Amino acid sequence: MKNINKEYIIRGMGTILTDSREIVIVGCGAGGGTAAQFARKTDRKAKISVFEKNFYPQYSKCGLPYAISGKIPNVMDLIEFSEEWFKKAKIDLHLNTNVEKIDISKKIIYAKKEDKNITKNFNSLIICTGSNPKYPQIKNVSVKGVFTLRTLDDAKKIKSYIKKDMNVTIIGAGLIGLELADSFFKKGLKVTIVEALENILPNNLDKDMAKIISDEIPDKIKVFTNNLATNIEDEEGFIKNVLIKNKETQEERKIKTDLLIVAIGTKPETDLAEKIGCKIGTTDGIIVNEKSQTNIKDVYAVGDCTEYKDYITGKPMSVGLGSVVVRQAIAAGTNAAGGNYVLPKGFLNTFTSEFFSKEIAGTGATSLSMNEDSFVSAKYNGKSLPHYFPGGKKISIKVYADKKTKKIIGAQCIGDKAAQRINTIATAILGNLDVDTFRKLETAYAPSIAPALDAETLVCDILDMKLKSKK
Amino acid sequence: MKNINKEYIIRGMGTILTDSREIVIVGCGAGGGTAAQFARKTDRKAKISVFEKNFYPQYSKCGLPYAISGKIPNVMDLIEFSEEWFKKAKIDLHLNTNVEKIDISKKIIYAKKEDKNITKNFNSLIICTGSNPKYPQIKNVSVKGVFTLRTLDDAKKIKSYIKKDMNVTIIGAGLIGLELADSFFKKGLKVTIVEALENILPNNLDKDMAKIISDEIPDKIKVFTNNLATNIEDEEGFIKNVLIKNKETQEERKIKTDLLIVAIGTKPETDLAEKIGCKIGTTDGIIVNEKSQTNIKDVYAVGDCTEYKDYITGKPMSVGLGSVVVRQAIAAGTNAAGGNYVLPKGFLNTFTSEFFSKEIAGTGATSLSMNEDSFVSAKYNGKSLPHYFPGGKKISIKVYADKKTKKIIGAQCIGDKAAQRINTIATAILGNLDVDTFRKLETAYAPSIAPALDAETLVCDILDMKLKSKK
Repeated sequence: MKNINKEYIIRGMGTILTDSREIVIVGCGAGGGTAAQFARKTDRKAKISVFEKNFYPQYSKCGLPYAISGKIPNVMDLIEFSEEWFKKAKIDLHLNTNVEKIDISKKIIYAKKEDKNITKNFNSLIICTGSNPKYPQIKNVSVKGVFTLRTLDDAKKIKSYIKKDMNVTIIGAGLIGLELADSFFKKGLKVTIVEALENILPNNLDKDMAKIISDEIPDKIKVFTNNLATNIEDEEGFIKNVLIKNKETQEERKIKTDLLIVAIGTKPETDLAEKIGCKIGTTDGIIVNEKSQTNIKDVYAVGDCTEYKDYITGKPMSVGLGSVVVRQAIAAGTNAAGGNYVLPKGFLNTFTSEFFSKEIAGTGATSLSMNEDSFVSAKYNGKSLPHYFPGGKKISIKVYADKKTKKIIGAQCIGDKAAQRINTIATAILGNLDVDTFRKLETAYAPSIAPALDAETLVCDILDMKLKSKK
Repeated sequence: MKNINKEYIIRGMGTILTDSREIVIVGCGAGGGTAAQFARKTDRKAKISVFEKNFYPQYSKCGLPYAISGKIPNVMDLIEFSEEWFKKAKIDLHLNTNVEKIDISKKIIYAKKEDKNITKNFNSLIICTGSNPKYPQIKNVSVKGVFTLRTLDDAKKIKSYIKKDMNVTIIGAGLIGLELADSFFKKGLKVTIVEALENILPNNLDKDMAKIISDEIPDKIKVFTNNLATNIEDEEGFIKNVLIKNKETQEERKIKTDLLIVAIGTKPETDLAEKIGCKIGTTDGIIVNEKSQTNIKDVYAVGDCTEYKDYITGKPMSVGLGSVVVRQAIAAGTNAAGGNYVLPKGFLNTFTSEFFSKEIAGTGATSLSMNEDSFVSAKYNGKSLPHYFPGGKKISIKVYADKKTKKIIGAQCIGDKAAQRINTIATAILGNLDVDTFRKLETAYAPSIAPALDAETLVCDILDMKLKSKK
């Protein structure tokens, strides 16, 4: 019983089987891998075991589109922490191992690797089971040539399936759909995008902002918004056509398709968690708090399988962004190992991506998550450099403020350094800044880098006027 | 007496000569020009007069090095607001006109354009007289081939003076000195830099940060820090050599020089202001408050001729950055025209520049403005992209926190998107964020744009640990 700190003795209770804390992590995606890493950082002596049903340790899911495009040369480059790394960190990594059952009263997990049964006791459990891709409600999604992009193996399969001049149809014009559309187009494939809602990027950008991206999509890419996929036609088991139907006009089309990518979102994988009594929220994820704890003592959950809160509205929010997953994982790993890491009261869902030579980014609450009568917004179209300096790039930025408090609550940005500009707005939100204070921010100025008054604050001058005129 | 608002009648007192507010602005640099613009925005009917002793209306002083390098093709491109613009805005612009006297009791200025005397009444006066370059205490600074770079004419003269293979010596390794050194080097000139203090950029970066830039300076550029210019040798009135002396070793050197640029700072031009009783501060500038008011009623001052406060320390601070000038000018112009614009309680002195392929930026209080025992700092060297993504660029960032309050108070950054990263830190300062809160900021992540955990917050993880360990 040496090397045990006091807190551990209190926490471990009757389940202490060894002389140190035992942490079990289910799933080795960005969530599980990062949680393991921070558990190790927090407790050098803890016994940490990670169980992953697939063949690979932590890799970057967000990098998958770039592995297909070839920007990242080898799909295997996406692996962020190798088996070797886990060995060095003295973390037991069980790949190709399925956790089949959890006995929460005895704190034991039962796993299976091929024919071998593995049981493991734990003091703390971290569930990082991720999510599964959604499919449209149509037949034939199992014919050859239909893919989703969630795993390293998906990327490998798609990459080897691609042939010159193929007709690719992408269902879903979200971030992944557009990243893929851009990649496929650059590879010379013929690309069609089908989106069920009224505009592309419906979960990321307002209509007017999304239009800026629509206008950049090359004419050779066909985009059908407001359209549902209704059927898939095949030839000898291989996809041949996708049938789509306009929701408004009912017009039907047949899209010649050799390769179909379904990118319409995911559903949290919560089977194991539900069986041990974890509460599931309205967005289908495991409800976690600011310490990444579930409602079950000593059970944490992280990532795409969870539900947390929106920072501004407090509404339940499905976790889906890598950035959010990693932060939850830091909290879960640290806390499961006896540390104390408290996340902000909710997530801003700060995101970024780039396609068709445009960087986009956003943060906080916007018209996509709030009622029209609770906020005021302003938009500014500017340049990244002073007008007298050659080479300035376009910036469009829209900032949202709470109508009553005049605090900054969100923003969307397209163009030069959009991600970093949005980080500045995210900081303003975290700092509880009102529009009038933030618009006076002294931004960095040099003719070759940024104008004396930069887009982030200029848009807030407009917003400030609008707020004051609405008194 | 139509069109007069109440406030004007109170303010104007016995000096009302027309039916609207009269605003006189002395100087048409970034300060004067911007003040005029915002006075016009605030009061559509005010009579606004601007007096400028030189030949050009508002132009970008910060752009001068780029006009010399040729990055901005024509020196005249630097003019930001043309005479035509002032005409359209119904602002009387008097170029080549020297304001010789101000009668503050009668509220009249006396100016002279060539032989013509001009008098003008005012209700509000805005002084934007700028600053004059400093010279080292040596003889012969008036020989041919010695320049400073403060005006459009300076840039024109330097540009036409440059010949291939010339030996250029720059005294002063500040932002302008290094911007010029980089430009001259790229033009194929032989460049030597002489700096009196121990390292380059002594007013902008800590020694360890400055070293990152030193290491990037090509070997062909000779840099002598800790050296003073002691004499200038000429041949038939043209500069031939600059003599320098090491302050420590007393070693003397003779630097062959065809063109000498003196860039060791400026001294506020306050003659007119002093004569009417404006208080001058310890940094030699006219003391102004958060409304850009001087101690004299209805007299405002803006820009390089002024002294304001440091946002963190509250110490008097000489105004020198274009970004600061413009913000003071917005305040002065708006307030002089009857509006109400209140600046933050001090300036962060947020700056940026780039040379030798490195962007640098900084904000707030650092070791350069604070005592060692009042702050804790941390440094992080990272990459702009996740390690698995090709093309990541180096970032070095150093963040400072108050030892007691744990609030973020300043930062320096070198590398990819340094300016925008520093804007984020500046926002954290304005938002009064402590290190532990800011380090949990959800930054924008996408493999091709930024890593899941970005440099700004990672450095604060380290800083947080240091702060907690110093309890």
